[in-house]
Amino acid sequence: MHDFNYRHNNLYCESVSIEELARKYGTPLYVYSRNTLISHYRKIKEAFRQINPLICFSVKANSNISICRALVKEGAGLDIVSGGELYRALKTGAPSRKIVYAGVGKTEKEIELAMRRHILFFNVESIPELELINKIAGKLGVRQKVAIRINPDIKAKTHKYITTGHGENKFGIDFKTAGNIFLRRVLYKNLNISGIHMHIGSQIVDAKPFIRAMERVAVFMKGLEGHGCRVQWLNIGGGLGIIYTKERPQTAGEYAKAILPILKKTMANIIMEPGRFIAGNAGALITRVQYIKETPSKNFAIVDAAMNDLIRPSLYGAHHEILPVRSRSYSGSKDIRVFDVVGPVCESGDFLGKGRKFIGLRAGDLLSVMGAGAYGFSMSSNYNSRPRVAEVMVEGSRIKLIRRRETYQDLLRAESR
Amino acid sequence: MHDFNYRHNNLYCESVSIEELARKYGTPLYVYSRNTLISHYRKIKEAFRQINPLICFSVKANSNISICRALVKEGAGLDIVSGGELYRALKTGAPSRKIVYAGVGKTEKEIELAMRRHILFFNVESIPELELINKIAGKLGVRQKVAIRINPDIKAKTHKYITTGHGENKFGIDFKTAGNIFLRRVLYKNLNISGIHMHIGSQIVDAKPFIRAMERVAVFMKGLEGHGCRVQWLNIGGGLGIIYTKERPQTAGEYAKAILPILKKTMANIIMEPGRFIAGNAGALITRVQYIKETPSKNFAIVDAAMNDLIRPSLYGAHHEILPVRSRSYSGSKDIRVFDVVGPVCESGDFLGKGRKFIGLRAGDLLSVMGAGAYGFSMSSNYNSRPRVAEVMVEGSRIKLIRRRETYQDLLRAESR
Repeated sequence: MHDFNYRHNNLYCESVSIEELARKYGTPLYVYSRNTLISHYRKIKEAFRQINPLICFSVKANSNISICRALVKEGAGLDIVSGGELYRALKTGAPSRKIVYAGVGKTEKEIELAMRRHILFFNVESIPELELINKIAGKLGVRQKVAIRINPDIKAKTHKYITTGHGENKFGIDFKTAGNIFLRRVLYKNLNISGIHMHIGSQIVDAKPFIRAMERVAVFMKGLEGHGCRVQWLNIGGGLGIIYTKERPQTAGEYAKAILPILKKTMANIIMEPGRFIAGNAGALITRVQYIKETPSKNFAIVDAAMNDLIRPSLYGAHHEILPVRSRSYSGSKDIRVFDVVGPVCESGDFLGKGRKFIGLRAGDLLSVMGAGAYGFSMSSNYNSRPRVAEVMVEGSRIKLIRRRETYQDLLRAESR
Repeated sequence: MHDFNYRHNNLYCESVSIEELARKYGTPLYVYSRNTLISHYRKIKEAFRQINPLICFSVKANSNISICRALVKEGAGLDIVSGGELYRALKTGAPSRKIVYAGVGKTEKEIELAMRRHILFFNVESIPELELINKIAGKLGVRQKVAIRINPDIKAKTHKYITTGHGENKFGIDFKTAGNIFLRRVLYKNLNISGIHMHIGSQIVDAKPFIRAMERVAVFMKGLEGHGCRVQWLNIGGGLGIIYTKERPQTAGEYAKAILPILKKTMANIIMEPGRFIAGNAGALITRVQYIKETPSKNFAIVDAAMNDLIRPSLYGAHHEILPVRSRSYSGSKDIRVFDVVGPVCESGDFLGKGRKFIGLRAGDLLSVMGAGAYGFSMSSNYNSRPRVAEVMVEGSRIKLIRRRETYQDLLRAESR
């Protein structure tokens, strides 16, 4: 599943020892395996090869341009959600015709920027947005391709913050309204309304909600066809779950097997927007134990990474596996204890894992927080005036620093003195 | 309570119209009232004047150096929790003898830096930390003053992420262990263990948990005195709640009345660490409505601020009042509707307020998210590649840009190309 493995009880990323990386770049440190990243992209590509979809990596999952560029070099497109992500996407060298732009709050300026760069299309989330894009296209004298984002009213079983295809969510347009848009599409004279987008949420481990949503969309498309309206593009979004701990998510192959029949019948060009599936298990957050603190009620391993570096445990109650970088064996050690792994930030919400068992854990030890390649660094902040950490990418035995550690000076860069 | 008020139906910060600020600096925008900030500081100072405490502003609540410096000029000290905050504190010109340093995960480097700058003392959170500080003091040849942070095992009624004085939290040291430290204090020969610190949590609106915790600490100090050990400093932390919506928190005066008798009896020099109480209601996040989106189940006001700018609603379920910058009257308008106020970030956890009633709200309108002066900007991130917003401070009719808006270029500053 990923290229973080033990060699003689020492954790390696591909052919590089994590200890060496920590020594060289300090901690906390995000470490990515290029091979894991690329192989996950290829798994999807291979599973869906019959229909040759455009696979647009979801930039918000991991926005580092070196990560995005590695995928772009493999042929991936990019799924963006802001002007900042457009800026990043262009820096990677991604061809404009492989960039799709989603999000409920695109500003006039952002739309115009993206339109001038001739991105493939916008995923449109509301009628007011459709009207705004039509207006801007008129101003620029272009005929803009758009996809209508459908809200299929499916409740996917995931954290409520990352379910996005339910009727109560802010995303997408209901079938009835969407149908009216397609049937009256000539009214939007600067638009080529030729695609449908859906995205029901993130970290979904079960095929059923995907199938249900796609079946509904397929029926909808069939209905449009009956009215002489053929949809050329079908963007099925992302949302494929990964293994953080005991999840048994569908593989890319199983997912493909389940939905390929539906997709083929639509005759549309297919776009996919995986993010976590590609990058999630390609990254780990390396942290050093600062203190072992014993209290009457609990043991704490106080580490140098915190909620500002990885907010998923605090924000979503997410579980990340935490591995010792130097593994000690049960035999020989009687010091097996359970710890809350917590950071230095001054709130009780600052934890990376609770109730984790370690053998002989002591101050100075390195820990590796797994599955941190998606929604890790991209959500990090400077809370408690903590400089954001460095990121390195490993490829075989090669190491590339893809983001340097911030300095104290960086914290004040934008402030007046 | 604060200096954000309507004049002829237009919201002002002190003597400056919010509309003018939005026009000049764009949105989203953090706006602070200097007068509100300073007057809250003075309220505490005045309430406790009998004992003349050192009031150390909690830098993590709002770390902007212009905010911190305004308070330092008034005589405030600073409560810091990291090397980055030490760096900021020194930039404000705060005297070292008014800086106290807390936090469970201080690194060796951070401790050494702070010691070399002769801060007043460290609030020590564990025995291993005490030993580390003792070792570093020995290396530097100084006798370092420290306070022992007590965990009084009090459950304060607040969000579980910001309660910090309960036995299950990572913070502080239990009474028994702390008692042993004081009685054997000669063993730490490079330390002057002469203070006690407590901090039971944040946004506590009721005096009772404070009183209970302080009574316990007072009994503990009395006990130490019986063993010939007089504690010179008592740092009672922060945690005073503010009004976000319907809270009826104790005023500074009521708080003082409740705890002054206990504090006086201890005969110790008192330190306080308010953050939210001083800065919370001194700031607002100004945002512009991008789209009004009507769906079969809900109305959404999609604004240009998002969870990356203000994460409190998403992370703590916090309620912030949201006011229209231009107020419309009920009379004359029949367009009174309820909205979820949501941002452009691509997850359902991105909301600023739910079920809020507005009159005649439309795209282009400005909204003011109140009570955003503490744990607002300081927790903000670049998630979704959104540049962090600008901050301005208003004093009467004067405006000062205290942090410029980030650019797309800023996003990539630390990354390799």
